[in-house]
Amino acid sequence: MSKTYYYQPAELHDYIVNYLKHWNVPEADAALSADVLLSADMRGIDSHGMIRLSSYYGSRLRKGLIDPLSPMKVIKETLTTLSVDAGNGLGHPVSVKTMQMCIAKARESGVALATVRNSNHFGIAGYYAMMALPEDMIGLCFTNTAPLVVPTHSRKTILGTNPIAVAVPAASSRPFVLDMATSIVPIGRINVYQKEGKPIPSGWGVNGQGQVTDNPTEVREGGGLMPLGGPELLRGYKGYGLSLMVDIFSGVLSGAAFGTDVGNASEDKQCNVGHFFGAIRIDAFRDPQSFKNDMDKLLEELRQAPKAVGEERIYIHGEKEFEAEDMAKKEGVALSEATVKTLIEGGAIDGLPFEVKATKIIEE
Amino acid sequence: MSKTYYYQPAELHDYIVNYLKHWNVPEADAALSADVLLSADMRGIDSHGMIRLSSYYGSRLRKGLIDPLSPMKVIKETLTTLSVDAGNGLGHPVSVKTMQMCIAKARESGVALATVRNSNHFGIAGYYAMMALPEDMIGLCFTNTAPLVVPTHSRKTILGTNPIAVAVPAASSRPFVLDMATSIVPIGRINVYQKEGKPIPSGWGVNGQGQVTDNPTEVREGGGLMPLGGPELLRGYKGYGLSLMVDIFSGVLSGAAFGTDVGNASEDKQCNVGHFFGAIRIDAFRDPQSFKNDMDKLLEELRQAPKAVGEERIYIHGEKEFEAEDMAKKEGVALSEATVKTLIEGGAIDGLPFEVKATKIIEE
Repeated sequence: MSKTYYYQPAELHDYIVNYLKHWNVPEADAALSADVLLSADMRGIDSHGMIRLSSYYGSRLRKGLIDPLSPMKVIKETLTTLSVDAGNGLGHPVSVKTMQMCIAKARESGVALATVRNSNHFGIAGYYAMMALPEDMIGLCFTNTAPLVVPTHSRKTILGTNPIAVAVPAASSRPFVLDMATSIVPIGRINVYQKEGKPIPSGWGVNGQGQVTDNPTEVREGGGLMPLGGPELLRGYKGYGLSLMVDIFSGVLSGAAFGTDVGNASEDKQCNVGHFFGAIRIDAFRDPQSFKNDMDKLLEELRQAPKAVGEERIYIHGEKEFEAEDMAKKEGVALSEATVKTLIEGGAIDGLPFEVKATKIIEE
Repeated sequence: MSKTYYYQPAELHDYIVNYLKHWNVPEADAALSADVLLSADMRGIDSHGMIRLSSYYGSRLRKGLIDPLSPMKVIKETLTTLSVDAGNGLGHPVSVKTMQMCIAKARESGVALATVRNSNHFGIAGYYAMMALPEDMIGLCFTNTAPLVVPTHSRKTILGTNPIAVAVPAASSRPFVLDMATSIVPIGRINVYQKEGKPIPSGWGVNGQGQVTDNPTEVREGGGLMPLGGPELLRGYKGYGLSLMVDIFSGVLSGAAFGTDVGNASEDKQCNVGHFFGAIRIDAFRDPQSFKNDMDKLLEELRQAPKAVGEERIYIHGEKEFEAEDMAKKEGVALSEATVKTLIEGGAIDGLPFEVKATKIIEE
């Protein structure tokens, strides 16, 4: 039996803003962070939402490991590119502002790409890719993360779960929003199995010898996550290659940390995370309306395709999240008992009690 | 016991050029096709090399299904983008020329992207991405292909094996060259198991009900390939998402065919394949020498990492292929007995006997 708490989005937003302001984050930046965090919870990606407010962002602001003033600087700029230094600020505001500049450049020149170095965890990559959608642009976003993934043939975690996000508008269909870690599962999934004392499915992780294991504790202690694809027989080196590609675009091209140098939130050092953003004007290639009509056609062909035995629905990437968002707007933002617990505990530590009132509580 | 035949690269190149000229492909275009096909065999990607000369390219030129004169046209152009119509010509010459134009644009503007529609099979995607390397640029290349892959929860092949290629230069290390199909394996691997009467590893393909099967015949007849990741438990919907992304960039953005409309080489209709290319100047973001030194550092960290039990080497993507190429330059291009057989048979049909002399034949 676990409880789900429902809240008004605006009230949660206010709480996040006040929480971050308490740690000297300027109000406008705090509002941008709140937008991204709340979006994760509304879209059902609760691992990247408010559950991290105190445990990740708060704990690092408290220790002075993130600069609340985010002294971001554009360090290099061309007609089509931007290199930004985030000044060790929060990941969300610098990412929103960089993607905005990237979109503005693409408006002028058709295509623009941007890198950010010296940043921190920025929440869901899909949020930034989706910023391109109202402009009839394709949006891209990658980021590197602390090393949790073991490259094929190794037994050491060297690469991050390094996500790839791509957002593409359609006409009457919802947009295509791919937002995927390049590991099979995030470390949080392994933690859940460990807590429940259950074996993990074969292929999710390896032990300290680099061998596939079903023991979540072995994965967490000395082992690591497998890249998308899993073992060599199922071509896990492709997932390893995608993760490496993301580290190159986010870490190496930006001048941020890469490989095992990317900081872990549990360490008392700067993370120096790197991000990569892109915006592509569709009308640079063809008429946007025709493009979007063709998107509808392709996505509809997929949705209407014959189903596998036992399956009732073929999903387009992003669809579940858009439906969750619609539901959250109607029914309120659903937070798990565990998330509410961290908010109450974190708020108590910081003297900012989490007193937002749930509109309903469902027990199941 | 099978034989491997070794040839001088220049002599194979001459044969390909003469073969294509016979079908009215202009000499300069034939030479570009020969470069790409030979590169595949030299790099050990023999499924995409000369084995297709007669069976794919020849058979379609013979039937008038490919226009040998490749009347390619730039149909839209901006400072940073190019939309090309290949005029149903061979895939290789239009792709080499488009990537050259893309690189020239990136030289001016920092970043350039290009699409090609109305094209045909273009060989190995990595070839075009690698064209950016000598320019200190990052190269990108995607293409869609005939539908062979079954989306998660479906039982119908709707998407292609849609490869992603990314090439990134390093300093003293060989470049990173990711060139991967977004399915687990290509259909050719299934054919090999079928011919040998062996079961395929679980996860490579599904049967006509959309269920995982180890029977290669079921995969080929009514079933299909699984996207990278395989079943839902191992997050095969991410591979499905990557394949769909490639179809959007190559098919929808270019105005080519997409989904099930992409032509299969065995059908007597135009394929209308779409490609996508990109070139990114590294010095638009940071000093290229520092970038390449950091690439060395990252790739070396991966190579030197502790190995999994039973493994001796961690590979960087492209490394095996560069080593194969070095070997081919020294020892000659290795062609399998099956490839030589298709060349002899194809040459006989077309009155262009394959009389290139092997420098050695190894039986093992």
